Amino acid sequence: MLQIHPVNSSIETWNPSIEGTILSLFDPSPQAENWEKNVDQQILKIAYQFLRQIEASSDIELPDLMAQFQEFHLPDDASSFDTYLESLTKTLIPHSIHTSSPRFIGHMTSALPHFMRPLAKLMTALNQNLVKTETAKAFTPYERQALGILHRSLYQFPDEFYDYHLQNSHSTLGMVVSGGTSANFTAIWCARNSSLGPKGDFKGIEKEGLAAALEFYGYQGQVIIGSSLMHYSFEKAADLLGIGSQGLIKIPASRHNRIDLDCLRETVAECRAQKQHIIAIVGIAGTTDSGGIDPIEEMAAIAQAAGVHFHVDAAWGGPLIFSQQHRHKLAGIEQADSVTIDAHKQLYAPMGIGMVMFQNPQLAKAIEKHACYTVREGSADLGQRSLEGSRPAMSLFLHAGLHAIGLKGYEFLIDEGIRKTQYMAEQVRLSPEFELLAEPEINLLIYRYIPEQLREFVAKGELTETQNQAIDLVNEQLQKAQRHAGKTFIARTITQTTRYGPMAIVALRAALANPLTTEADIDAVLDDQIALATQLNLGGSQF
Amino acid sequence: MLQIHPVNSSIETWNPSIEGTILSLFDPSPQAENWEKNVDQQILKIAYQFLRQIEASSDIELPDLMAQFQEFHLPDDASSFDTYLESLTKTLIPHSIHTSSPRFIGHMTSALPHFMRPLAKLMTALNQNLVKTETAKAFTPYERQALGILHRSLYQFPDEFYDYHLQNSHSTLGMVVSGGTSANFTAIWCARNSSLGPKGDFKGIEKEGLAAALEFYGYQGQVIIGSSLMHYSFEKAADLLGIGSQGLIKIPASRHNRIDLDCLRETVAECRAQKQHIIAIVGIAGTTDSGGIDPIEEMAAIAQAAGVHFHVDAAWGGPLIFSQQHRHKLAGIEQADSVTIDAHKQLYAPMGIGMVMFQNPQLAKAIEKHACYTVREGSADLGQRSLEGSRPAMSLFLHAGLHAIGLKGYEFLIDEGIRKTQYMAEQVRLSPEFELLAEPEINLLIYRYIPEQLREFVAKGELTETQNQAIDLVNEQLQKAQRHAGKTFIARTITQTTRYGPMAIVALRAALANPLTTEADIDAVLDDQIALATQLNLGGSQF
Repeated sequence: MLQIHPVNSSIETWNPSIEGTILSLFDPSPQAENWEKNVDQQILKIAYQFLRQIEASSDIELPDLMAQFQEFHLPDDASSFDTYLESLTKTLIPHSIHTSSPRFIGHMTSALPHFMRPLAKLMTALNQNLVKTETAKAFTPYERQALGILHRSLYQFPDEFYDYHLQNSHSTLGMVVSGGTSANFTAIWCARNSSLGPKGDFKGIEKEGLAAALEFYGYQGQVIIGSSLMHYSFEKAADLLGIGSQGLIKIPASRHNRIDLDCLRETVAECRAQKQHIIAIVGIAGTTDSGGIDPIEEMAAIAQAAGVHFHVDAAWGGPLIFSQQHRHKLAGIEQADSVTIDAHKQLYAPMGIGMVMFQNPQLAKAIEKHACYTVREGSADLGQRSLEGSRPAMSLFLHAGLHAIGLKGYEFLIDEGIRKTQYMAEQVRLSPEFELLAEPEINLLIYRYIPEQLREFVAKGELTETQNQAIDLVNEQLQKAQRHAGKTFIARTITQTTRYGPMAIVALRAALANPLTTEADIDAVLDDQIALATQLNLGGSQF
Repeated sequence: MLQIHPVNSSIETWNPSIEGTILSLFDPSPQAENWEKNVDQQILKIAYQFLRQIEASSDIELPDLMAQFQEFHLPDDASSFDTYLESLTKTLIPHSIHTSSPRFIGHMTSALPHFMRPLAKLMTALNQNLVKTETAKAFTPYERQALGILHRSLYQFPDEFYDYHLQNSHSTLGMVVSGGTSANFTAIWCARNSSLGPKGDFKGIEKEGLAAALEFYGYQGQVIIGSSLMHYSFEKAADLLGIGSQGLIKIPASRHNRIDLDCLRETVAECRAQKQHIIAIVGIAGTTDSGGIDPIEEMAAIAQAAGVHFHVDAAWGGPLIFSQQHRHKLAGIEQADSVTIDAHKQLYAPMGIGMVMFQNPQLAKAIEKHACYTVREGSADLGQRSLEGSRPAMSLFLHAGLHAIGLKGYEFLIDEGIRKTQYMAEQVRLSPEFELLAEPEINLLIYRYIPEQLREFVAKGELTETQNQAIDLVNEQLQKAQRHAGKTFIARTITQTTRYGPMAIVALRAALANPLTTEADIDAVLDDQIALATQLNLGGSQF
């Protein structure tokens, strides 16, 4: 349990009336500054106690936690913040997940650079609203700069291109959004609107809607095509945009977790023959479950030949562009019409920032909107072309990362993550307790635990479906037990691209992005799994 | 210009190699804690210097600012954060908008309670991902609690309702989203999907898409109905969801900026006669341009009679529920199927948090999605039913506000904002230089400056269209001049609901939510406008 020392200057003591209390909460007085300085020190202490935890989480059960948050009455009278903070240190913080722990290697989180924390406070102190220049003056060109730097790293256009577009308010090199899901929505939205735009008497899908657009253009329906490993945000996009999730065509992925190109070509031809409008072809640079990378160059060529928008979801894998050793894996990404990259993943920004980048700076005009009270036509307001309206200055984290981590820093982080994943793969390969389910492409790894009685069958590659199902159950139990114990953490997924063919198999998934994770931490995670499996006698009786 | 004192312990001095540099950036070592403590103190100083600025902004021109952000090369080698922070204090911070200034009363921003800033740092230190319990254990019931408290304040269901639903993972009382735009999207998405759901052989719009849904249900098209003053996010929603912005039917608003109920009834009847599917009727509780509130109770009755989803956009006005004096203005809001409220507006949270609330805890099932690697069916994962995927623990600000401001605190804030708006309206009414364009309903005010030569015509209500257009130009110039000078700030909009009939009129708009704004500040803003208009000789020659 974290300890917290109460400070002496509590807010209520400044003034007893509600007016005084509230005004003193907002007034940037010297007393307030002094109060905040004390609270800053408390938060710093709490933060570092939290950040130093090696365990993945506490071992409290979720229902027990829920029982502590049952009150639903709004208090008439406020607590002092000191009292409130104390309650957070009792109920909330000790049972938060140690996403920065070197042994929490299951999800796409990591420790963050120290400077991100003070910047979060600065962002909130400035409290800009990026929707328009009237509420975010300098932040508008500043955010555009960060996006321009990222655009150039990705697309490598000549300098004149950036001289012209970087600060040109008619151009959109990219957008800062709340995360990869919104980035994917935005890309597909732009693709849909630009491919079903105004023509002759037809005012475009934006004005007349999807059904009218299909009728005008003579299409029988509309689809998005990608591999079966597309992120679930594309299900959401297909639903949200009126396409329907049946319109999300999932091409089988090969054992390397890459899309089957022949099948993609056939599907494109079939859709065209059946007058199904292809809104976009989606390539993946780092599948969520195993880090597979689609053959981007070939997909770009197929999309180009078909005149279809090509989007690459590089939410996870995008920062490979910073690695001399690994950027070849993304070859062809510069041919994508749009690219999703998350800053809160491998650019090491705090949760809540993703980007969508556009090859053509005019593409986002397809979703442009105006309002007389805020984003005006012809202005430099970033909110003219964006999914979200009012939004915070999260670009502070992106811009700061690009400058205070730099190319070489990001290269090191990417290279190290992949190197450590190779190490973990090797450990898994060498341990009879585990089976490697796919050769890792980047820094995501899928494997599973094998109960002792079945190891010889695995070695021979002779597992029956029933045996596989039993192993599934064991791995599900193991992952839950490990999560509950809280000492280490690995995620769980289902894979259909193993040597066992299209059979759905429960897999353990590691994500190795935290630079603080050492080989010893990886060993500890695997050892923890072996110990838990033994202790629970997992698979000990059913065979 | 803000001054910044360099700290001695710079990150690079810890280790010269790239490995050492990067690891030391992430390692929560005692040196790091000490470094961060120093940076915290610098940020606090920067923050308070910024927060104490009375002026609305610097007077730099946007093109001059853009010229400072022209670089588009990613640096090979990182700057130290100290150097980077110094650059921010030169180019970025001095030219950020003083959104917390008591004289920046044009947009929907305010000073924030002090405790929001340390909390921002805490949020980033914990860096939870609310998409699932595996990355946000205690935060899951904690966020649900904050939403439950808000739900009860709004809908006032009996205790048993909350005992059952508050922590029930099958129920969705509300969602935390990035802002009002996403909240409105989510509400319309739920309304669309639940009204065009699975039936017989039809698998529902979610699976089969919008065109198939219209065909199956025998509709000719689809519409959303609200007043002409709906926020522009509904234009986006209509486009995004495949409805098309032509499907957004805008009923004229009366002089009180309320929807014309007769016209609404006729439109509903007409749509039904023409087999146009009405996805939702939208009521507004606080229009963005003038704070008008629709007759919510009557609209709810119309929607209910027609069996149509009723959504209330209370992004701005929602917190009136906390005021005994003013909550009657929202009478009927508890009959809304869904309600949008922004926490970053009148709940005084930092930018980036809005909520959508649902009367029926099962409604959001209409947009439910799962993924084997993350949000699993039957889990408590909040990401099962949400627009966004990975997202930060912004609910920290909502929960803290509810507890450390409390009911009485929010009531005071709402009451004071409205009281000061009445004061400002009275000053405008008494000044021959200005014309009040609408009696304020809440704490938004629209008015305009009248050049001297035209004041007698205004007094008689005898302005010609040409004279009105000349006044429009004057007010546009005045608002731009005021914004540029930066001493005070008022926003600008276009209104069509004045005594001049449906003519579009340029208006100045004040938003009075900042508790630090005094009557003297209001006087200063109006005096600044009069002085600027005189100085610029606005309207001095054209009449």
